[in-house]
Amino acid sequence: MGGSLAAALSSQGACRAVVGVARRSVTLATARSLRFIHSGTTDLQQGVQSADIVVLCTPVRDILDKIGLIGAWLKPGCVLTDVGSTKSAICQAMAYLPEGVQPLGGHPMCGKETSGLTMAEPGLYEDKVFVLVPLPRTSDQALRLATSMVRAIGARPLVLDAQAHDRIVASISHLPYMLAVTLVKAAEALTEGDDLTWRLAASGFRDTSRVAGGSIDMMLDILMTNRSAILESLGQAQDHLSALTRLLQDEDYAQLRDALEAARRRRTEVFR
Amino acid sequence: MGGSLAAALSSQGACRAVVGVARRSVTLATARSLRFIHSGTTDLQQGVQSADIVVLCTPVRDILDKIGLIGAWLKPGCVLTDVGSTKSAICQAMAYLPEGVQPLGGHPMCGKETSGLTMAEPGLYEDKVFVLVPLPRTSDQALRLATSMVRAIGARPLVLDAQAHDRIVASISHLPYMLAVTLVKAAEALTEGDDLTWRLAASGFRDTSRVAGGSIDMMLDILMTNRSAILESLGQAQDHLSALTRLLQDEDYAQLRDALEAARRRRTEVFR
Repeated sequence: MGGSLAAALSSQGACRAVVGVARRSVTLATARSLRFIHSGTTDLQQGVQSADIVVLCTPVRDILDKIGLIGAWLKPGCVLTDVGSTKSAICQAMAYLPEGVQPLGGHPMCGKETSGLTMAEPGLYEDKVFVLVPLPRTSDQALRLATSMVRAIGARPLVLDAQAHDRIVASISHLPYMLAVTLVKAAEALTEGDDLTWRLAASGFRDTSRVAGGSIDMMLDILMTNRSAILESLGQAQDHLSALTRLLQDEDYAQLRDALEAARRRRTEVFR
Repeated sequence: MGGSLAAALSSQGACRAVVGVARRSVTLATARSLRFIHSGTTDLQQGVQSADIVVLCTPVRDILDKIGLIGAWLKPGCVLTDVGSTKSAICQAMAYLPEGVQPLGGHPMCGKETSGLTMAEPGLYEDKVFVLVPLPRTSDQALRLATSMVRAIGARPLVLDAQAHDRIVASISHLPYMLAVTLVKAAEALTEGDDLTWRLAASGFRDTSRVAGGSIDMMLDILMTNRSAILESLGQAQDHLSALTRLLQDEDYAQLRDALEAARRRRTEVFR
């Protein structure tokens, strides 16, 4: 996500300078050679101390660590934001930043289950919703700067509060992940070690299970920091799965048809 | 499926003649103009009576009806097969065909949630597994003819018995559908009528829910004719969904990581 953001900002000439910060210098060399960044450093303090805007692009718990770490290094008025998948925990941590810092949460609604710089694409954010979560302390000017960054990469800014964001992503992003994992584990149990099953898996299984192939570190951080909303989603999923199962058990095909038809209609409305 | 099959057979020059049978003559005119078929008829008896091989390409319950209907019209030695999604009910019905007919079940493992002739593609079956289910009465010669048809369209024939086929597709095809429906219905319940949720739905939701947009008629037929295997799959899914939920409730992140990691590994092995 960070690589794609840097690529988008650089290719649009949106910043005087895009400075990359990474753990390994080879990552920075690659990013420079791809012209994703103007300069780079493995020294976090050096990378952020003269920035007008800092975007943290790591899994949620690492973002939480970094928020605690870099506050004192940022220059007055610096906008600190992130692309983390959950917002309540991050915005809570941001509330404790030194007074001069201008924090707000960010979350671009575009997934990649592949990560790493070589998979980065400058067009990743194009036409995607980019949620911005200002804190009570966030100035209008800071929100405007973040908004213009979002627009510069072709995304559509949407201001939400952290709780509303976290409930929505629990149902449209974290629940799909848990159901994809459920599918793989159920199919695995049903195969009883017979590899034939997997040879027959076609596009339906591939798409429904795709997100189960995503990064475990990222997903565990999400599960830890959005636990209650995800548990609510899981409860709903269990209820609906039980209801569908019961209709099939009872051979109530009229009601089953209504349920399937309602889901088909909704799915078709959302993704034309 | 039928349109793509005709297109593949015609484009490969695999048959002396590909004869299309459809309810509406406009469908046949389109199929002829696309060079998917050599000739066509809306009269089922006329369409099948001189065929060496007949492939029924409709939803499962319509295939069952047609098997009962056309047996008497087929010439001696005619191979009768299908592309229906479940095989036990179809092969049972095939067992009652007149003696001279050579029946065997068929199921190409490639999905399309769009249907209709204009969506047909001659390359649909390319490199896909095509399951063939011979009956005890099926001659080697009939199996060879069906196999060569499967190879002609670029698919990979795989002989299975009906029960094994139906158990496998319950877990890799019908369960994904039921989980996709569950996802849409749970998300719908969680939105409480707020359309914002759907505006934020990104690729994760899109892919995990894709098959919920498929044909209801086709899926209901599948649910009716593969009920017990699908109920077994649904039971497994409920168990695994409950287990994942419990781990999150208990904040047992070590075990949760193991479960997610096992699913990720399996998913990555199946689809590289």
